[in-house]
Amino acid sequence: MPKPRLKVIPLGGLSEIGKNMMVLEFEDDIIVIDAGLMFPEEEMLGIDLVIPDVSYLVERKEKVRGIVITHGHEDHIGALPYILPQLNVPVYATKLTRGLISVKLKERKAHDGAVVKTVSPGSAVTLGKFRVEFFPVCHSIPDAAGLIIHTPMGDIVHTGDFKLDHTPVGGRPTDLSRLAQLGSKGILLLFSDSTYAELPGYTPSEKVVGDTLDRVIAESPGRVIVTTFSSLVSRIQQVIDAAAKYQRRVFVIGRSMSDTVHLALDLGYLKAPDGVLARMDELKGLPHNKIVFVTTGSQGEPTSALVRMANRDHPQVHIQRGDTIVLSATPIPGNEALVNRTVDSLFKQGAQVLYNKVADVHVHGHASQEELKLILNITKPKFFVPVHGEFRHLTFHARLAESLGTPSGNIFVLEDGDVLEITEDGGKVTGKVAASNVYVDGLGVGDVDSIVLRDRRMLSKDGIVMVVIAVDSQTGKVVGRPDIISRGFVDPEEFRDMLEASRDLVARVLDHGGARPAEWSFVSTKVRDTLNKFYYEQTRRRPMILPFMVKV
Amino acid sequence: MPKPRLKVIPLGGLSEIGKNMMVLEFEDDIIVIDAGLMFPEEEMLGIDLVIPDVSYLVERKEKVRGIVITHGHEDHIGALPYILPQLNVPVYATKLTRGLISVKLKERKAHDGAVVKTVSPGSAVTLGKFRVEFFPVCHSIPDAAGLIIHTPMGDIVHTGDFKLDHTPVGGRPTDLSRLAQLGSKGILLLFSDSTYAELPGYTPSEKVVGDTLDRVIAESPGRVIVTTFSSLVSRIQQVIDAAAKYQRRVFVIGRSMSDTVHLALDLGYLKAPDGVLARMDELKGLPHNKIVFVTTGSQGEPTSALVRMANRDHPQVHIQRGDTIVLSATPIPGNEALVNRTVDSLFKQGAQVLYNKVADVHVHGHASQEELKLILNITKPKFFVPVHGEFRHLTFHARLAESLGTPSGNIFVLEDGDVLEITEDGGKVTGKVAASNVYVDGLGVGDVDSIVLRDRRMLSKDGIVMVVIAVDSQTGKVVGRPDIISRGFVDPEEFRDMLEASRDLVARVLDHGGARPAEWSFVSTKVRDTLNKFYYEQTRRRPMILPFMVKV
Repeated sequence: MPKPRLKVIPLGGLSEIGKNMMVLEFEDDIIVIDAGLMFPEEEMLGIDLVIPDVSYLVERKEKVRGIVITHGHEDHIGALPYILPQLNVPVYATKLTRGLISVKLKERKAHDGAVVKTVSPGSAVTLGKFRVEFFPVCHSIPDAAGLIIHTPMGDIVHTGDFKLDHTPVGGRPTDLSRLAQLGSKGILLLFSDSTYAELPGYTPSEKVVGDTLDRVIAESPGRVIVTTFSSLVSRIQQVIDAAAKYQRRVFVIGRSMSDTVHLALDLGYLKAPDGVLARMDELKGLPHNKIVFVTTGSQGEPTSALVRMANRDHPQVHIQRGDTIVLSATPIPGNEALVNRTVDSLFKQGAQVLYNKVADVHVHGHASQEELKLILNITKPKFFVPVHGEFRHLTFHARLAESLGTPSGNIFVLEDGDVLEITEDGGKVTGKVAASNVYVDGLGVGDVDSIVLRDRRMLSKDGIVMVVIAVDSQTGKVVGRPDIISRGFVDPEEFRDMLEASRDLVARVLDHGGARPAEWSFVSTKVRDTLNKFYYEQTRRRPMILPFMVKV
Repeated sequence: MPKPRLKVIPLGGLSEIGKNMMVLEFEDDIIVIDAGLMFPEEEMLGIDLVIPDVSYLVERKEKVRGIVITHGHEDHIGALPYILPQLNVPVYATKLTRGLISVKLKERKAHDGAVVKTVSPGSAVTLGKFRVEFFPVCHSIPDAAGLIIHTPMGDIVHTGDFKLDHTPVGGRPTDLSRLAQLGSKGILLLFSDSTYAELPGYTPSEKVVGDTLDRVIAESPGRVIVTTFSSLVSRIQQVIDAAAKYQRRVFVIGRSMSDTVHLALDLGYLKAPDGVLARMDELKGLPHNKIVFVTTGSQGEPTSALVRMANRDHPQVHIQRGDTIVLSATPIPGNEALVNRTVDSLFKQGAQVLYNKVADVHVHGHASQEELKLILNITKPKFFVPVHGEFRHLTFHARLAESLGTPSGNIFVLEDGDVLEITEDGGKVTGKVAASNVYVDGLGVGDVDSIVLRDRRMLSKDGIVMVVIAVDSQTGKVVGRPDIISRGFVDPEEFRDMLEASRDLVARVLDHGGARPAEWSFVSTKVRDTLNKFYYEQTRRRPMILPFMVKV
């Protein structure tokens, strides 16, 4: 009889930050933890978003018992609308997370047939041989959960994204007692959040930002505009609390912010005293020092309310001297330029702007090194797999575990697609499954490949030159003079002479091979090489050159 | 008789960081301070670099007495190869700066006829009615200068880029005595570096990094690879000093790093004890704990030695377990992703990597708020113009000046192209001159305009679809079936049916207008609209659609 064997397969979340997805497989049962998306990197031109490759799961569809979601951020739920139709399995999540998933599924019209079940923190669901218990963790969204997964081989803890905030706002602190209780006999395997494993010390409490918000809302002479992530409900709560304290009214602006605020109010994750929240039609006539706006745009998103205000393009709010704007967030890597531009525009209109470099307006939601050590220490895992982060974060986290005494042979810094097999003899990476990026572009999921992207990249640099050559379908002879059309290469007016000269050049190349009906592929290559050389000499640019033959 | 009038015109360096250029005009004399370039931002597709628009100067060529350069960084000298041929005026700089300018001019073949004169710190040149005195300042490149500009209306101080490092490495501290002496009677106008005006406190000394480098080079078990900016000669000096102390030999890798090291050695700005610097052919057989490499790549530049090492693509250096890599720099905004990817690849190969987030491996070269206050206090300017920075930096700097007592009416936060006129009555912005970005793309300077860039942007998102329609030149009738070729839009194999369907669609559109020879522009618009709609419905993508008629 074969030994019991647990397979651990990350399908996302380890090679890049985002699109988190972890697969656990024991005998005939598979469970999936999280199903996130990633926003495209700079070189993924034209791509809307990136999701994990789930072909491993699709091929084993009958074994998949369910998808367990730790919390409602895009990088943990965003792939659901794309993969649920392929897998058709139930999804388990806490109450607010479930609400956010429903919104996503509706947006993408993937709601039909989807089953999303609510699990309360502290309770559990049985999925084949896995029993999954949810426990509360503190993170930058309410109702975040970690998972305790009971298996025939032992207990597994997955922290989800977390921090240890002893004074959280409107949520429960991470349940350390439950973890300590489990850890008293030691657990089999720990998955722990590595996003901030580079940072020494402790992550500050959400309360720190509350003090800043309180002071700003108390002292600002005019309107206060607070912008943050719509899912950062605790931040919105603190704005509402401070506004109530200083008799200001709060106007929630923008669709995604309004949607989340309403969902959070309905489900009881956000509380507003009567008369604090206001409708836009109540704005008129209200003194400026009685107004707080809450909106998105902290990442400089071009269509957000804040950016439209910064560009003097918002229908209702016009920035003026006396306004104070708080960017209660840090720019996600890659968004710095957009955020900086937004801050500059707001300053130009005379506003006071507070952002992470100049004021304590944000704390992040992930554990730093001392918190990670605490989790390692109280759970006492036999095996450790750092998750959520790029290779350097995982490496730092692995070193922390080693420094606390986990044997290095029991620590696995995995990459997406690695298959880690755990038996009573130990753990070993035994193979690799497909886990590359799946690109979503418009309606297309996975159809944009490296060739399409390479073409976009080439087109983006120096544009395109089309060469249209008419050929008599009877004689194979060239008819007339070749045509040349360019886009994104040079100004066609200014470079008219050069473009005309290149037509002549093509004509000569064709003439040369003209006596016998040359092979098109030969002619095409010749034309491409000749123009490549000519244009590079003239401009030091390398447009894509596309010769095309029309048979007439 | 008109009152004496000084014109201050920033042509670059105030709307974005980089491409610094300040123009001073008094009666018939113009001087220019710095002539820098800027690296393209993300949306400037295919652009190599960006320089200031100097048409204001070209139109007044006979008045321009010279260009005064504060230091040898690209954002202060990089535009010289492009503008000197247009202006043909002498350039004044300190010795090392002059050396770096010569290298730039030779690289771009702009050396012929260029006159670059050396000015020692402490001495002065007369340029029309301006007398320009250079004084030493501390910055992240040796031989950096500030300027004291004596004019008939009073003295002007321009700090250049600077910090106040009381223990600089291999350079002189900023000459505060000279400034204090001038300030005793108060100066007319101060231009001061705003790059880090957001940051409270003092910028740490270069010595801080020396301690880290010393420890790393002493304690690392194997080879140490230090990467930094090639112009950061003081950092290279500290690496050489530590290597000498621990009997390691230093190998300088990569062309730009070697060029600068040789220039700095030749001119006496870098000192190496005998036998420390080594040639690559001395590498073989040397124990790993006797080796230090110095190279570029701290910004993740794809062609740099470090990135090639990270990609296992360097001919001489193969990263292995035991190597320690120090990224002695912070990523310039926009380079974060490249740098992160490089760090990850190095970790994957088993190296230890030290970078700004996890170790004290870099200090920057610009003054923080307390240093800026000190300069304002000792120079006692009547008028203040913050320079070098984006709008938010200038705003913070202006507020500092206001908090120290400069009347707000005498502080001018300018934008590129603003004309500030100063008379005995006060200062006033009286107009605006051309000062937009001039794009350099290959050999083209200024020919790439917003249309070319817009096309590149469109092409980069969803690619292009060309529609070739053959028309009988006699009858005006369409010949054969229209052809469709796409690049960067969809996989042509996978979407063959859709592309064929779109050919049919075009054929129908042409048929419809076929009875009478329709106007091409009308047909073209019709084809474009039809395909736009069809492709968007099918794919939610919007490729550029380019109908083209071949007359046969």
